[in-house]
Amino acid sequence: MWNYKTPGIPDNFFERTEKVPITKEEVRTIQLSKARLSPGQVVFDIGCGSGSISIEAALQIESNGKVIAIDYDLDAIELTKKNIEKFGLSNISVIFGNAKEKIKELELADVIFIGGTGGDTKEIIELCQDKLKSGGRIVIGIILIETLFSVLDILDRLQFGSIDITQVTISKSRKTSKGTMMLARNPVTIISATKT
Amino acid sequence: MWNYKTPGIPDNFFERTEKVPITKEEVRTIQLSKARLSPGQVVFDIGCGSGSISIEAALQIESNGKVIAIDYDLDAIELTKKNIEKFGLSNISVIFGNAKEKIKELELADVIFIGGTGGDTKEIIELCQDKLKSGGRIVIGIILIETLFSVLDILDRLQFGSIDITQVTISKSRKTSKGTMMLARNPVTIISATKT
Amino acid sequence: MWNYKTPGIPDNFFERTEKVPITKEEVRTIQLSKARLSPGQVVFDIGCGSGSISIEAALQIESNGKVIAIDYDLDAIELTKKNIEKFGLSNISVIFGNAKEKIKELELADVIFIGGTGGDTKEIIELCQDKLKSGGRIVIGIILIETLFSVLDILDRLQFGSIDITQVTISKSRKTSKGTMMLARNPVTIISATKT
Amino acid sequence: MWNYKTPGIPDNFFERTEKVPITKEEVRTIQLSKARLSPGQVVFDIGCGSGSISIEAALQIESNGKVIAIDYDLDAIELTKKNIEKFGLSNISVIFGNAKEKIKELELADVIFIGGTGGDTKEIIELCQDKLKSGGRIVIGIILIETLFSVLDILDRLQFGSIDITQVTISKSRKTSKGTMMLARNPVTIISATKT
Repeated sequence: MWNYKTPGIPDNFFERTEKVPITKEEVRTIQLSKARLSPGQVVFDIGCGSGSISIEAALQIESNGKVIAIDYDLDAIELTKKNIEKFGLSNISVIFGNAKEKIKELELADVIFIGGTGGDTKEIIELCQDKLKSGGRIVIGIILIETLFSVLDILDRLQFGSIDITQVTISKSRKTSKGTMMLARNPVTIISATKT
Repeated sequence: MWNYKTPGIPDNFFERTEKVPITKEEVRTIQLSKARLSPGQVVFDIGCGSGSISIEAALQIESNGKVIAIDYDLDAIELTKKNIEKFGLSNISVIFGNAKEKIKELELADVIFIGGTGGDTKEIIELCQDKLKSGGRIVIGIILIETLFSVLDILDRLQFGSIDITQVTISKSRKTSKGTMMLARNPVTIISATKT
Repeated sequence: MWNYKTPGIPDNFFERTEKVPITKEEVRTIQLSKARLSPGQVVFDIGCGSGSISIEAALQIESNGKVIAIDYDLDAIELTKKNIEKFGLSNISVIFGNAKEKIKELELADVIFIGGTGGDTKEIIELCQDKLKSGGRIVIGIILIETLFSVLDILDRLQFGSIDITQVTISKSRKTSKGTMMLARNPVTIISATKT
Repeated sequence: MWNYKTPGIPDNFFERTEKVPITKEEVRTIQLSKARLSPGQVVFDIGCGSGSISIEAALQIESNGKVIAIDYDLDAIELTKKNIEKFGLSNISVIFGNAKEKIKELELADVIFIGGTGGDTKEIIELCQDKLKSGGRIVIGIILIETLFSVLDILDRLQFGSIDITQVTISKSRKTSKGTMMLARNPVTIISATKT
């Protein structure tokens, strides 16, 4: 079991399946750091995938906080539930369905994470705007060029403040019989901003 | 004032000077996550520079833990002290001097951070080996090719386990009159390992 | 003097000034390779800057080919002229003015290079479309996120084929008293395509 | 058929097999540019793999130049021969065997390329030193940390001049149903130097 209170859970501590991609630990750690979580907060994790961000956020906001994890992929929902059980957490609600419909029914949030490779990130941000408390933080992980552009555009139009764009390229070592080589992972762009 | 309990303090919340480089927030966050800190731990921050790692570690190990920050540069020591004051922390001791001499006098540590651009990282790791508890973590930030090689060599010889090598390349956006450009920061390699 | 016939002229063989940025040699070499130049071709270099791409292209297309270099910055024009003189080339014409007006007056091209950080790359590509021979190549160096998106969009709409998107991140070594560090250069995205 | 005289042959113009890795075109182009080839030169390609560097070098040094391609892997030798035939070149000799033995028997070279993931790059450089003409160029493609360090060390000891270290990280686009994502390739370090 994971018995650390602090962030930085290694990927291999999570249940994983081939079908559902996991946000890799170094990128996840940066995403969490950009959220500036505090105990007691309400957090959305839209496109929760493996649930790894939900788990780490839930630990950081402690038992008086609340994470709401949403995904439209049933495999992702099941995997998130397995991970919640594995980490013994009771402050995460899991919702199966289309984020664009489900967000409307939710309470206000302090922090919203948006992940996934969806083409509808822009619409989701527009919907999140109404659900984010003033001063709340939005953190978006992006791998598509088109999404990067549309997110910049919508954040600008919705007058988000303190927009931070960070492209992260991680290489990890692999030991071979001849020496240590570096294997690159695909670059991820993390955009974070504050609702003004 | 910084009133978040969780990690990810933005760089501009720290006191900074031109003379002392600060480990940038995204790299610092990954270094901290690799340490897997817990409340109550004893942490060394060797080559503490601005003190930013000491500050974040001190928050994570809480008031019953203890950080010992060492630097041989007086400007770094003064800046670390200013940051300790700014964040109102009382669980960080600051030591001015040559780490190779000072380490010997210290108690055992749960986690040791080694930073800086020094050419003597190898000797420092050898000294740290004696001061690190079994199962303790070492986290090293590296920018020199020669240091990268010598650290891999010494960790291997000292039989450290779970050696993780992560090269991090961060680009940050800058808004210009014509659009958003990405500015690259120099790559940093973070090596972490567990004392077996 | 440069007495090589083959590509890969080091940056320090060019005349340079503080005011005019030069496409760095590794990026320039990739841009040139994407153009697939042949002797006798007609080449446009739009936003020629230091003229370094014009020079290398002029060497590759040989004396029966022709480069037309355009820039709206007088410093760039002067620097390009100095470099043409330095390399003793007679197959480069230099045009001072707004590319959007000047392109219309030009003959058909086999290859068009588009550089610079302008916000009007999209319009320039539309104009180039009419001037590019069927099967001709277009090679665009991009540093702005907004330009990257708009270029992808317009190439798609103009039905260019074999679209290749290559992001290049180069780090160069610097020897310090303590060892060899790597200094990152800003990432550049090179898009190349064929007119169908 | 490839009917361009200039460098930058796309990877898919070469015969390829699963067993033999090919130096990707963008990295190959930079390696070739660092060699500063001229017609009539003698070039070694040690660890020739698919033969792609030999092919492009042979085109650049023209029919009065000569490439000697060496590999200890029979699959690489066969593939190189297939590519020589495909490009209809007659100025490449292929040698099957251990470079450390074969180099001794060769004539003097103007340019030496060293590739491959071998652990014996250092010894090969020492042997090459005797076969490289004064003012000749050596270009080494490196993917192992240990090799990077040992190459720097030996070039320094053998008093090579103009040592250039370039780390290249390339990402290529892939179009998905949802948009364009960037796929990273493993970083390669290219070291080039001049025999003094």
